[in-house]
Amino acid sequence: MIVAQGIQIPELSSGQYDTVYNLFSLAVASLFFTGLYLVLSQKRVLPRYRNALIVSATVCFIATYHYLRIFDNFRDSYETEAQGGAGVYTLTNIPFNEGYRYVDWFLTVPLLLVEVIAVLALTRAAAKPLLFKLVVASGLMIALGYPGEITTDTGPRLFWGTLSTLPFLYILYVLFVEINKSLDRQPPAVVKTLRKLFILLVALWGVYPIAYLMPVLGFDGADAFVLRQFGYSVADILAKAMFGLIIFKIARMKSMADDPNFGDDHDFDAPIETGSPAQARS
Amino acid sequence: MIVAQGIQIPELSSGQYDTVYNLFSLAVASLFFTGLYLVLSQKRVLPRYRNALIVSATVCFIATYHYLRIFDNFRDSYETEAQGGAGVYTLTNIPFNEGYRYVDWFLTVPLLLVEVIAVLALTRAAAKPLLFKLVVASGLMIALGYPGEITTDTGPRLFWGTLSTLPFLYILYVLFVEINKSLDRQPPAVVKTLRKLFILLVALWGVYPIAYLMPVLGFDGADAFVLRQFGYSVADILAKAMFGLIIFKIARMKSMADDPNFGDDHDFDAPIETGSPAQARS
Repeated sequence: MIVAQGIQIPELSSGQYDTVYNLFSLAVASLFFTGLYLVLSQKRVLPRYRNALIVSATVCFIATYHYLRIFDNFRDSYETEAQGGAGVYTLTNIPFNEGYRYVDWFLTVPLLLVEVIAVLALTRAAAKPLLFKLVVASGLMIALGYPGEITTDTGPRLFWGTLSTLPFLYILYVLFVEINKSLDRQPPAVVKTLRKLFILLVALWGVYPIAYLMPVLGFDGADAFVLRQFGYSVADILAKAMFGLIIFKIARMKSMADDPNFGDDHDFDAPIETGSPAQARS
Repeated sequence: MIVAQGIQIPELSSGQYDTVYNLFSLAVASLFFTGLYLVLSQKRVLPRYRNALIVSATVCFIATYHYLRIFDNFRDSYETEAQGGAGVYTLTNIPFNEGYRYVDWFLTVPLLLVEVIAVLALTRAAAKPLLFKLVVASGLMIALGYPGEITTDTGPRLFWGTLSTLPFLYILYVLFVEINKSLDRQPPAVVKTLRKLFILLVALWGVYPIAYLMPVLGFDGADAFVLRQFGYSVADILAKAMFGLIIFKIARMKSMADDPNFGDDHDFDAPIETGSPAQARS
């Protein structure tokens, strides 16, 4: 059984403390309000793409919950005696729980891949095996990384990190080879944006292993802690909030490609059928 | 009158403490956001199946409330003096209240059975007696288990456990014999998924008696405590959040089977009848 352990955290200067503190608050704000925007924008895409938007919003909300917890946890883990808070921040007896991040990724990373499949709007027969592969592989990737994250030794960190890389490579294979095959039926502009989305996803997901490996690479102490939190937080904001907005953009493009009569001038919830393309053409 | 008692809880290592802590947070996140997803997805099923979704979401929200309470209660029940929180977690003077779980189950288990009946969309005449039997039996099942949970003696634990098993067996009888009879009118794919749902429900509900019997089976101390909380929490996540998502899947399948013209391309809330595809084709 995997047992979580309180991460070793260093004392921080007030500047370092404030940087991490503001970064966590930035993450809360950008994730929550992107989620809200996606919920409010549902009617601007065809019903078949709304699930992609709902799942994207859900990912943003789950991450918001975890950043709220991380924010409170960080605040409780430190104290300072300096009036006005300008002194050194020392540790309290409350551990800084890096487990929140892993619980978050365990839930959100599979859902991010569900978003991708949902916005493609494949047939059920085509989507189901892809979903199964991606969800299982991404769950494994996170679960295998966690034991390495909570250790302070280099050996186990590299061991679990390597194991965790295997499902990651498999996900890349599925995204670039298997999904690419099914892109023929998508409009050309959408295919271009989807390819960019995949590349963005790989680039962003590359930040996580770098942050993970920082202790192995010899970066240690307060600066490394701040940098690791910075890397994780910025990557989370981009890989969830910005990613969700790109999914929304693709859903808009596909909505208009599917039904050219309905651009920005129409609320897709109106009784669109009375003036459906079939009828209009006849 | 049954009087609740603070459960005997052991001292924990920081690893054990963090594991339980993260597990409770995982339960909060997965239950709440599944509930939210179900609320946001209502329009993707026909109006007749929406009650099943609303009840499923309510179950997830009730469980979220209780896990928030359990989370706070757990945190308050322990303290550590080690800086960074890496030491042993000893007990405070605040009891760990296992009663939250029983209050939760007392409300949610009958509702889970209401979900099943609601997604079948039986006639009122057929649904009413089934509902009555299932709700009463499930309420009894939880109420009879509670006196056994809070005792430290083996005798009463077995006595109340056995009593609680009787309504459980009755529920299985109703699900597999009585409801099976009414499945003839359901689409074949739905019947298959429903059978899977029943089996899942029995498998998951089997986790609870195992966790309940752990003290009787000789498992005791800190590891047993962690394992019991693990069993209850994971079973709750699966039996409520995953269960709700399967109910949603069945509602989607039935919506499309009831009205083959309306797949993913339609928002079931729009005035769909006026310009249905059938009309466009003519």
